[in-house]
Amino acid sequence: MPTFYYAPGTCALASHIALEEAGAKYDAVRLSFKDNQQRSPEYLKINPKGRVPALVTERGILTETPAILAYVAQTHPHARLAPLDDPFGFAKIQALNSYLCSTVHPAHAHRVRGSRWADDPAAIEELKRKAPQVVADCFELIEAEMFVGPWAMGETYTIADPYLYTLCTWWEGDSFDPKRAPKLAAHRHRMAERPAVQRALAVEKA
Amino acid sequence: MPTFYYAPGTCALASHIALEEAGAKYDAVRLSFKDNQQRSPEYLKINPKGRVPALVTERGILTETPAILAYVAQTHPHARLAPLDDPFGFAKIQALNSYLCSTVHPAHAHRVRGSRWADDPAAIEELKRKAPQVVADCFELIEAEMFVGPWAMGETYTIADPYLYTLCTWWEGDSFDPKRAPKLAAHRHRMAERPAVQRALAVEKA
Repeated sequence: MPTFYYAPGTCALASHIALEEAGAKYDAVRLSFKDNQQRSPEYLKINPKGRVPALVTERGILTETPAILAYVAQTHPHARLAPLDDPFGFAKIQALNSYLCSTVHPAHAHRVRGSRWADDPAAIEELKRKAPQVVADCFELIEAEMFVGPWAMGETYTIADPYLYTLCTWWEGDSFDPKRAPKLAAHRHRMAERPAVQRALAVEKA
Repeated sequence: MPTFYYAPGTCALASHIALEEAGAKYDAVRLSFKDNQQRSPEYLKINPKGRVPALVTERGILTETPAILAYVAQTHPHARLAPLDDPFGFAKIQALNSYLCSTVHPAHAHRVRGSRWADDPAAIEELKRKAPQVVADCFELIEAEMFVGPWAMGETYTIADPYLYTLCTWWEGDSFDPKRAPKLAAHRHRMAERPAVQRALAVEKA
């Protein structure tokens, strides 16, 4: 049975939700970022990047949200979490998920983890100051150009939805006003009502 | 026939190489970043993010390197650019490509495009100063923990290779000494000898 490593409040929630949506059997293991467990020697053997999520399977270890999401969809075809026989539809999901991991998540990280890219405290403060504006630009672009509705890709729920939802749960911390993205705000509400989302959140908040 | 939008010296090279490896039929259209063509009203209709690459297909438009790479592999199965019937093998490729787009590319971008995350000139200078160290940490981690060899995933060439290669072509600008990653340096040399790579570079340099 795979083991899923997560930490509450992180992007690992996306994979956690997808595992629940798929009806996957897995063990969930919580890491405490407060105690820096993601940098412990034991965990660095699992994920040398010192990040979450990580999924330990019988074939080996997978990291990175878009990879785990695609893996969950492909190994649980009955859950219909991605159009597995439509390369274009699959690529549209990958395009949104890539944008979320390459641009939106880093935009957010500049507010809380500026020391990844700067040592000077004044520069770290400047990253923190500008981050909400960069984050807002991202979500307004998703609202205007990428989100179809009612789900991210249109009528069908896919692995793009839990990832988009997860980053939208960070809005308040990034001072993003949900009124600036009403379609995404409705999506966030819609997601919060799904049993799989509630199950994943209940575990992470327990 | 799809139209592929690229700019020389950008991560679009990865998709360009993959299209050549696949023997795909496509038109290549060059944008000049010097003339800011990626922000022109015409191009923003194609990719509202104002970035490259973009692939205009008869089904619609694809952006983001990992998405285009997966699409090329899935639509050209005879080219065997990814293990299409092995979800774990496919996910391992997606994991490396996600790390390249979410962590390595942004690490590099802090040297050349710090104004994405800071307005204060002193902070932008600080990002530029630290970037080579952040980039070096990434490539040393890939060398030690992710790269299998002789190709990124092992014995078989995949869509992870052109993406890894493309970011390795930025080493000199980021002051990264190839001696710090000898396996990746050998991979870069191996890649440069492939006819598909030479064809893509010839077009981009013409």
